[in-house]
Amino acid sequence: MAELRIIALPGLPEIVEGDDLPSLMVEAARRADLEIAERDIVVIAQKIVSKAEGRTIRLEGVEPSPFARRWAEEHGKDPAMVDVVLNESRRIVRMERGIIISETHHGFVCANAGVDASNVAEGTVVLLPIDPTASARRIREALEAAFGVGLAVIVSDTFGRPWREGLVNVALGVSGIAPLIDYRGRLDSHGRALRVTILAVADELASAAELVMRKNTGVPVAIVRGFDYEAREATVREMIRPPDQDLFR
Amino acid sequence: MAELRIIALPGLPEIVEGDDLPSLMVEAARRADLEIAERDIVVIAQKIVSKAEGRTIRLEGVEPSPFARRWAEEHGKDPAMVDVVLNESRRIVRMERGIIISETHHGFVCANAGVDASNVAEGTVVLLPIDPTASARRIREALEAAFGVGLAVIVSDTFGRPWREGLVNVALGVSGIAPLIDYRGRLDSHGRALRVTILAVADELASAAELVMRKNTGVPVAIVRGFDYEAREATVREMIRPPDQDLFR
Repeated sequence: MAELRIIALPGLPEIVEGDDLPSLMVEAARRADLEIAERDIVVIAQKIVSKAEGRTIRLEGVEPSPFARRWAEEHGKDPAMVDVVLNESRRIVRMERGIIISETHHGFVCANAGVDASNVAEGTVVLLPIDPTASARRIREALEAAFGVGLAVIVSDTFGRPWREGLVNVALGVSGIAPLIDYRGRLDSHGRALRVTILAVADELASAAELVMRKNTGVPVAIVRGFDYEAREATVREMIRPPDQDLFR
Repeated sequence: MAELRIIALPGLPEIVEGDDLPSLMVEAARRADLEIAERDIVVIAQKIVSKAEGRTIRLEGVEPSPFARRWAEEHGKDPAMVDVVLNESRRIVRMERGIIISETHHGFVCANAGVDASNVAEGTVVLLPIDPTASARRIREALEAAFGVGLAVIVSDTFGRPWREGLVNVALGVSGIAPLIDYRGRLDSHGRALRVTILAVADELASAAELVMRKNTGVPVAIVRGFDYEAREATVREMIRPPDQDLFR
């Protein structure tokens, strides 16, 4: 009988710039008597990855552009925060009612370019990692060396989406796992081609992990165990739909 | 240590119109020695719900409209299938390159209005349930009576979305569980308001369940155990973002 386990990793300290995140995760797992097994998938909230990498900005050091200042004042927002969001954006998708939805330099479309003022010291904001795929790979290699097993790592964040209420956790960067499963060419039980052809399993794994992270509990890491995946390196480009093939856009 | 289990329910037979789906699920659980526990969440692929409810159509009985016929011929599609998709739609979002993305009568935006020709007899297509929330409630009440425990039920389907590659499983109808968790007003560890305010846990639970269903294995039901949820009735309207509040649209 197929069964997955999703296990929260408790006991991580508050992460700050320069922290050796994989070592802290190893220590937390050992304190919790949590054995890491071959082919476990480690899902990590981007917030702590960004903090360890120093991807934080003190807003008082930001000199907002005239454009950022004007728009912020018009909508009762912090001009420095708006300036940071614009800098983290490749293009603006929507800028209305004080909300900015933009495409990040990685190609992700999300609110505020992923810039976040919660769970960080007053006056400071956290940016997305510069290269979440590279972050995932570094963490995977360090964890594999420490535990002596082959693993996959997913760096995740919660994003909104059109049409449906609420945010869901998705994958920003993956290492050691193919982010999609392609069923094209496979047949159903009646010998007909499957309608559902490509499933975004990295996003589904991120969503599954979020269920034990729960935003307010301060558990930014979860282990998914028992999922049969294709172990290989992947790029962020695989996860982003090219505009010319995106009829949902 | 917080831990979730996601358990596939094996051994369901091919479902046909008029089948008593809850009874078949009870029998399958007993054969698999799978105890259903208080507050388990039962996630069910809409395909078998629709089949049991007779939401299938034989395409040879369909008289396509001139519009459906013309568009289908232009794009090498089956005119009857196109006609069925149009009938299942409240409005068309995009109609290009042989692909129809539309809003269903429930308010879901998806490809082909959720009409599916895979895993069903040749010449037949499966429609979404007329009222997936009512379907979920009927199944929940029957399962609760059979097992003597309080449960939640989610009827799910895999949908595409803008910007990101691949489909993910989402909730179409829920019963016995609040589909969203609202963190508004709660503070983070630094006493600042949380950025992430509303999480779509029903969608995350559907995605988690999909990881053990896997499209080609023929397992359309999974149990999520260990998730702490708000037990109450819910409507599909809670899960759909009103257009005037949807900046992602």
